[in-house]
Amino acid sequence: MTVRETRARTRVLVEAPWFQWLVIGVILVNAAVLGLETSESWMEEYGDATRAVGRTTLAVFVVELALRLFAEGWRFWRSAWNVFDFVVVAIAFAPGGSASGVLRVLRVLRVLRLLSTVRSMRTVVAALIATIPGMGSIAALLLILLYVSGVMATELFGDIDPEHFGTLGVSLLSLFQVTTGDDWANVVRPTTDAEPWAWAFFLLFVVLATYIVLNLFIAVAVEALDRETEEDNAEMVDEMEQAVDESTAAILASLSELKQQVAALEARLEARD
Amino acid sequence: MTVRETRARTRVLVEAPWFQWLVIGVILVNAAVLGLETSESWMEEYGDATRAVGRTTLAVFVVELALRLFAEGWRFWRSAWNVFDFVVVAIAFAPGGSASGVLRVLRVLRVLRLLSTVRSMRTVVAALIATIPGMGSIAALLLILLYVSGVMATELFGDIDPEHFGTLGVSLLSLFQVTTGDDWANVVRPTTDAEPWAWAFFLLFVVLATYIVLNLFIAVAVEALDRETEEDNAEMVDEMEQAVDESTAAILASLSELKQQVAALEARLEARD
Amino acid sequence: MTVRETRARTRVLVEAPWFQWLVIGVILVNAAVLGLETSESWMEEYGDATRAVGRTTLAVFVVELALRLFAEGWRFWRSAWNVFDFVVVAIAFAPGGSASGVLRVLRVLRVLRLLSTVRSMRTVVAALIATIPGMGSIAALLLILLYVSGVMATELFGDIDPEHFGTLGVSLLSLFQVTTGDDWANVVRPTTDAEPWAWAFFLLFVVLATYIVLNLFIAVAVEALDRETEEDNAEMVDEMEQAVDESTAAILASLSELKQQVAALEARLEARD
Amino acid sequence: MTVRETRARTRVLVEAPWFQWLVIGVILVNAAVLGLETSESWMEEYGDATRAVGRTTLAVFVVELALRLFAEGWRFWRSAWNVFDFVVVAIAFAPGGSASGVLRVLRVLRVLRLLSTVRSMRTVVAALIATIPGMGSIAALLLILLYVSGVMATELFGDIDPEHFGTLGVSLLSLFQVTTGDDWANVVRPTTDAEPWAWAFFLLFVVLATYIVLNLFIAVAVEALDRETEEDNAEMVDEMEQAVDESTAAILASLSELKQQVAALEARLEARD
Repeated sequence: MTVRETRARTRVLVEAPWFQWLVIGVILVNAAVLGLETSESWMEEYGDATRAVGRTTLAVFVVELALRLFAEGWRFWRSAWNVFDFVVVAIAFAPGGSASGVLRVLRVLRVLRLLSTVRSMRTVVAALIATIPGMGSIAALLLILLYVSGVMATELFGDIDPEHFGTLGVSLLSLFQVTTGDDWANVVRPTTDAEPWAWAFFLLFVVLATYIVLNLFIAVAVEALDRETEEDNAEMVDEMEQAVDESTAAILASLSELKQQVAALEARLEARD
Repeated sequence: MTVRETRARTRVLVEAPWFQWLVIGVILVNAAVLGLETSESWMEEYGDATRAVGRTTLAVFVVELALRLFAEGWRFWRSAWNVFDFVVVAIAFAPGGSASGVLRVLRVLRVLRLLSTVRSMRTVVAALIATIPGMGSIAALLLILLYVSGVMATELFGDIDPEHFGTLGVSLLSLFQVTTGDDWANVVRPTTDAEPWAWAFFLLFVVLATYIVLNLFIAVAVEALDRETEEDNAEMVDEMEQAVDESTAAILASLSELKQQVAALEARLEARD
Repeated sequence: MTVRETRARTRVLVEAPWFQWLVIGVILVNAAVLGLETSESWMEEYGDATRAVGRTTLAVFVVELALRLFAEGWRFWRSAWNVFDFVVVAIAFAPGGSASGVLRVLRVLRVLRLLSTVRSMRTVVAALIATIPGMGSIAALLLILLYVSGVMATELFGDIDPEHFGTLGVSLLSLFQVTTGDDWANVVRPTTDAEPWAWAFFLLFVVLATYIVLNLFIAVAVEALDRETEEDNAEMVDEMEQAVDESTAAILASLSELKQQVAALEARLEARD
Repeated sequence: MTVRETRARTRVLVEAPWFQWLVIGVILVNAAVLGLETSESWMEEYGDATRAVGRTTLAVFVVELALRLFAEGWRFWRSAWNVFDFVVVAIAFAPGGSASGVLRVLRVLRVLRLLSTVRSMRTVVAALIATIPGMGSIAALLLILLYVSGVMATELFGDIDPEHFGTLGVSLLSLFQVTTGDDWANVVRPTTDAEPWAWAFFLLFVVLATYIVLNLFIAVAVEALDRETEEDNAEMVDEMEQAVDESTAAILASLSELKQQVAALEARLEARD
């Protein structure tokens, strides 16, 4: 009984707004610490203090996670956001410790706890992720176009311009760069200078890739708009149905009066008979 | 009584269309003067005349503001536009005078009085500002991505390419440049030439940043469209409700006739009884 | 009478589909001639033939315009498209002749007759032009931002990087380039290398300019969508009103039957009295 | 009879999901083989095995096509997708064989069989192609602008900057590059350095081209949105019509009761007469 009660109280605690704001504050302090640690001049002068603040924020995270684990029990693991919180904090205690380069870098992911802790950020991230499946087919189309063009470019232009098209990997990166429209003319220039007909290949690629990317963007926009429109439409249908319902009610009420009039008439006749 | 009357008359004056057009004209002349003052050759030849015109426009601004202050009294300060007008004119009289470099530059903000004085510009600026809150969460997401990637890039690539990723500040600027899609391949080239696996980092960053920026743009577009749609929908609902109302009225009128017919019938029976 | 008849017949002629297609064909041939004339090697070999074809197409244009002028009379000048057709053909006979460089170049505008002659192109051009007023205020906002930033940049950075910000004209071009997102980091690099705080100026400018351009684009898109939506909505209202009308008609017909029933009842009672 | 039966069975086979998944798997293996063949180091070591796998996948394609040809008979040729499948496989057996360079490259098109085989990709490709006619007029407008500006630029700037505007072909490529916004300032710099008034030409071109491309994109987006909106609207009209129908039914039912009441009244009177 006492364990249950303590759990319930802990749940009230970890869900209290002031607790959430405290955690958000600690995440921001932690983010600042991680930023300051990249500056050598700062670390030379205030290194000890900065590291101490960093360890304190980490301790707060551990306590917070322990409280939430205790409060929610095994249901804690049901939410992907909770798992994320656990993993980014656990990284700090991975074997090899914070000394190892990659793990040091991964500590920065703790800043992403802002996404899991601030409620409105969760909604935005969830909405962005929800839009991804709708782009699946068009994204696949773009990947197929990139792959086919990459193999072709490697075979056709690999010897002419090895820097941009020497291997399939390099070709794919070059074509991805062309797809983003960044400096594409300079990427293809060495090839087209040697083989003018290569312009046909690259023009076709630019037009196709732009068209597919445009449709990818439109797919995202249409989905976002559709969500808005559906709400608006549901509201409109509601308003209209209410107008029809009121009209129907008024007419049926009038009919009901008429029926009573006729019934009274009948009663009178009946009485007379 | 006379003060009140003078105030009322002054208000009529400063709100008169011809007065507004006069002020707009003076703002444009002032803008031209500020532009001409950047040309040394022009100032050498016509410097005195140009400066004289500039001082005259400033005098007009002072008189105009004094009139509006007198006409509107303390309510003048309620509108942010008025405060803006006051500040940009007051800058010219700040201690240090127009000699100080920064204040000289800030004088150019007087051209922005076009935004506060032309009514349609006010509406547009207000609409643009009104759209900002709707982008808040997604803009925050972009800033978090930039910060996390900036710290990571500084730790991972700071030694490889100090020009682009040497300090957190430089990294953030480089990644902002990558986000705008400007010349990003050249920014990352030194790093990826040294560490080919860095492509994974930058590709992920480009895709994520592009996706978030796209959603930022879509959020603005959806809000703008929603405003239009809501007006259109309200209009549609009105038209349909009117159709339903007319139909209801016709039916109820017909029912009313029927009731009178039945009432006449009843009267006849009653008369007979 | 005969003049009138000839006019009517000429109008039938110039409006006949085969005549329009002929003119379109001649415009395309003329476009090809103008393109071929830019090639020196072609003109050396086939110069006489090409020039002969060019003169023939010009003759066809003159005859066509004369026919249309005769057919439509003074009403010819009412349509801006007709005036455009007249001017681009008349250019060839301007004093100075086709020898003068500028007039030679302006002859190319004759290709634009495709826009005035092909009906679907006219519609598209008219639609594009119709969208311009809706962007007016936002475009003005962009121009004001460019001007204010241009004057500021010239005063602040004119001495640091004269190539990009030396005079107001050069500054405006540089900032326009930054607005289009083309190579902006390289434009601002010399300035920010000398004065790191200049980043604040340019970041603010990039964000503001991008935001205004985005809203400019959205304004165009919203207008285009609104046209579609209005048609769709009108259709929907029509369908709904028809449903309501049918419902009303059915109910009123039923009521009318009922009235006859009651009237028959009354007639029976009356007959009995 | 047996041929017919065998045909029917073959059709069941080639349309079975497991068969389709098998073909998709073979296409992916074939794509991997084509990619690996671009790597010389891989081919030196595993060349024989890779080529063997490639030949096997080709054999599977041939068998699959033969089965589908047998199953569907002459109707096979009705679908453009089937013709596409046949052609990309047939390329491997073209005279000159896989030795010829161009044919080697065209083999990569076999990867595009993913588009014809995966059903959802077919839908996407069909949707993208269906959007093209709606952009026809605006795309033509862009081409006309490019052609006219290309001829003009060649005549005006051909001698100043032969690298970018020497011939009509080179001018068109340069202007296409300017249209995509890639490095446009550097393309026009040599010309504008020599002839400052050329800025007017290029600024006008950039603004016009951007505006037309924007409208091209909007046309695609509006069409995509319109498809969604039409579905949504049809749904809305259905819901509202149902509300009206239900209202009408309720009123008519009530009226029917009333009629029976009146009929009963009449029957009573009639009985009395």
